[in-house]
Amino acid sequence: MASLPGVGRRTALRLVLHLLRQSDQDVEAFSNAFTRLKKEVIYCRECHNISDSELCPICGSARRDHSTICVVENVQDVMSIENTGQYSGVYHVLGGIISPMEGIGPKDIEIDSLIERVTKGGVDEIILALPTTMEGDTTNFYIYRRLQNAGSDIKISQIARGVAVGNQIEYTDEITLGRSIVNRTEFKG
Amino acid sequence: MASLPGVGRRTALRLVLHLLRQSDQDVEAFSNAFTRLKKEVIYCRECHNISDSELCPICGSARRDHSTICVVENVQDVMSIENTGQYSGVYHVLGGIISPMEGIGPKDIEIDSLIERVTKGGVDEIILALPTTMEGDTTNFYIYRRLQNAGSDIKISQIARGVAVGNQIEYTDEITLGRSIVNRTEFKG
Repeated sequence: MASLPGVGRRTALRLVLHLLRQSDQDVEAFSNAFTRLKKEVIYCRECHNISDSELCPICGSARRDHSTICVVENVQDVMSIENTGQYSGVYHVLGGIISPMEGIGPKDIEIDSLIERVTKGGVDEIILALPTTMEGDTTNFYIYRRLQNAGSDIKISQIARGVAVGNQIEYTDEITLGRSIVNRTEFKG
Repeated sequence: MASLPGVGRRTALRLVLHLLRQSDQDVEAFSNAFTRLKKEVIYCRECHNISDSELCPICGSARRDHSTICVVENVQDVMSIENTGQYSGVYHVLGGIISPMEGIGPKDIEIDSLIERVTKGGVDEIILALPTTMEGDTTNFYIYRRLQNAGSDIKISQIARGVAVGNQIEYTDEITLGRSIVNRTEFKG
């Protein structure tokens, strides 16, 4: 238990003691759930999101715009963007971002399959929605170069960066504030 | 003491007891500092920033770009933006933002003087750097309309809004994330 992220020794002990108080049956069901989790969850062959069938519900939906691909780091990001209700295209889950510090290179994540998906045709735009960190920027730039090299001329955009909604200027961090002034946008009444 | 923001009864007591332990002289100097504060601080006649002379050091500087005015809510915002080192224009401190809830209307803040400053000529752009709240948006729009009505055709821009630098997608609030997808920008390698 203590090997799980965010679960320390004391919490682990509490959870284990809780399980000991349950019936044999319940504990077995609990235990089997993990084996099934690993066995039965599959990844969508198009976008690599978790799925229960070969094609995830988003990729399989005729109501989604399949000409726009939003590139994200992981499955949680798909859920976050779906929760906004502002996006009707499809996704591509990289399963990580390029990070020399952690030894993650372009080959370790789903970049080749993204380039393949785009060059296959039918895609008008990709939206880079990676973290606004150095690793995210590196990955953005790598994807951009790969698409250029592949002779692709689709539109490449990235999510807007700047001061978050509801924020006061004086409490915004200096780097964000500085960039949001440099990258200011036209005010459209 | 307890009337100061963020100072509760216990802290006030602690501060007062501290003052009682000081010499008469020190306490008098401390006391006089407040009278002088109120008497000697003046506001710049151009931008309404706090100043020690009629024109603040920013408005008086020949090294600043006087054709660009950054409109901010208060003096702290000037300091925050100066700290970024990314802005070389001048400022206009409104001294508040329009807030019907708090009974603050356009006449209560320095909007007339802003319109006057802009229509007087010599200004190419104003940058709206108000909080990204409803009150900020209302004030932005009011200034925009006032400038339109005054027949001004200067460039009006606003600070970029979106995901803050260094942030993960999954921890970004839904409204910011949703808008940052809708208002995505072109990726320039």
